[in-house]
Amino acid sequence: MKRSERLVAMTHFILDRPKELVSLPYFSEKFDSAKSSISEDLAIVNKMFREEGIGYLETIAGAAGGVKYIPSYSKEYSLEFVQSLCEKLEDPERLLPGGYLFMSDILGDPKTTRDIGRLFASAFHDQDIDAIITVATKGIPLAYAVASYLNVPVVIARRDPKVTEGSTVSINYVSGSTRKIQTMVLTKRSLQQGARVCIIDDFMKAGGTINGMKNLLKEFDAEVAGIGVLAEAEDEDEERVVEDYLSLVQIINADDRAQSIEVKPGNLLQYL
Amino acid sequence: MKRSERLVAMTHFILDRPKELVSLPYFSEKFDSAKSSISEDLAIVNKMFREEGIGYLETIAGAAGGVKYIPSYSKEYSLEFVQSLCEKLEDPERLLPGGYLFMSDILGDPKTTRDIGRLFASAFHDQDIDAIITVATKGIPLAYAVASYLNVPVVIARRDPKVTEGSTVSINYVSGSTRKIQTMVLTKRSLQQGARVCIIDDFMKAGGTINGMKNLLKEFDAEVAGIGVLAEAEDEDEERVVEDYLSLVQIINADDRAQSIEVKPGNLLQYL
Repeated sequence: MKRSERLVAMTHFILDRPKELVSLPYFSEKFDSAKSSISEDLAIVNKMFREEGIGYLETIAGAAGGVKYIPSYSKEYSLEFVQSLCEKLEDPERLLPGGYLFMSDILGDPKTTRDIGRLFASAFHDQDIDAIITVATKGIPLAYAVASYLNVPVVIARRDPKVTEGSTVSINYVSGSTRKIQTMVLTKRSLQQGARVCIIDDFMKAGGTINGMKNLLKEFDAEVAGIGVLAEAEDEDEERVVEDYLSLVQIINADDRAQSIEVKPGNLLQYL
Repeated sequence: MKRSERLVAMTHFILDRPKELVSLPYFSEKFDSAKSSISEDLAIVNKMFREEGIGYLETIAGAAGGVKYIPSYSKEYSLEFVQSLCEKLEDPERLLPGGYLFMSDILGDPKTTRDIGRLFASAFHDQDIDAIITVATKGIPLAYAVASYLNVPVVIARRDPKVTEGSTVSINYVSGSTRKIQTMVLTKRSLQQGARVCIIDDFMKAGGTINGMKNLLKEFDAEVAGIGVLAEAEDEDEERVVEDYLSLVQIINADDRAQSIEVKPGNLLQYL
């Protein structure tokens, strides 16, 4: 097989397996080529991934070695995306009663959710993460997008147990915005003890829901390895109960009566 | 830029934009290369995509022309995946009361949901589809995976309206399995009139939920462009109310008392 052809197949293969170790002998056999040629191919792939700002190949030496694609999107790539997101969100027509924001169109676009996933995965790429958790419903596409680039499973907490999931663990938590007591459940089989889990959600005001997930993780003896929210909004009446999170955008002065809103980049960009 | 380097960047660029038209002049400028070189590159990409069984490049001639990556996974690729899925599901430990099956671990793995998405996208790749619809919660990752390869938005129907979505349209439907009357709502802004919509869900017994989505689409004057379910199961007491669907696997003789279950490939493979 020619180098040019091999590079097309190899690029696809590698992109399709982020954070998965692939050995040189595997490539050598798959493409029926000498290890020295494969090494040269991988150097080209690595160079171009870096130039395109989409990450790099990590080389693991030794008998059990090989390469791993680490998705890590560059600051330039990310800044452009975050700015266009701010512009889209900064539309007074999106304002809903209670200072909420209509975001379903944005969350409904798989290209956008993929981009959001990339940014969180890049920010968390050097963390040791075993799983992603989110609570139904809006955070689900984001959780999968992040998980897809970190190559870890997703677990979904629900606000109501469902018959098709088997036995569950449930906790009560106080919603930050409404001060109501709510329930959150997670299927028993879904998380291993001691797992390092990253919390992903679409929206955070006071942080009650995120806090609920933190408490749920405690019940599983799991650790919080990171927290990422698409949009954080101020809550005048309530102090924030969650610290140490990354946000993609910050919603400032959302006022549905005055029909005004301001959206700025969140703190995630500082971690790229 | 050398051809080998260009091919790495180009393969990533194309894979990242399924069903999106990219013009030759765009590539020519992006890679600072002659159109004739770009044409040769694209021929190599097309050849290798076909050989790897992951689809092909469609060439659109004329001034507004260019190429489009059509993800269409080969029957061999798909058969292997479906068979391994059947084996995983054919485990009596998965049986839950009422003939349901524990599938959260499978649906929680982003690599698996991506593969499922690819297969449905391949089966529907020559259909004119404007959007994917599913109902919360389990079908969501599958809907996004399919949508991602078809490059269309996802809309999510819910069983309860939510304050953060604005005004909604709701319908009542009869759940096939429990014969209970249930409600399904969809945000008004989420679908355009006349849209051709593909329904995706994780599980179908009698088909009441799928039928509910069909009725909901009628309210939006939208058309059903296709129906895909991950797993279909027999329902002894109930005749199926949905026809014309594709399934990835078929659950036969699931019996939680006898702890027995059989899982076979569904009809989707016939459409690849």
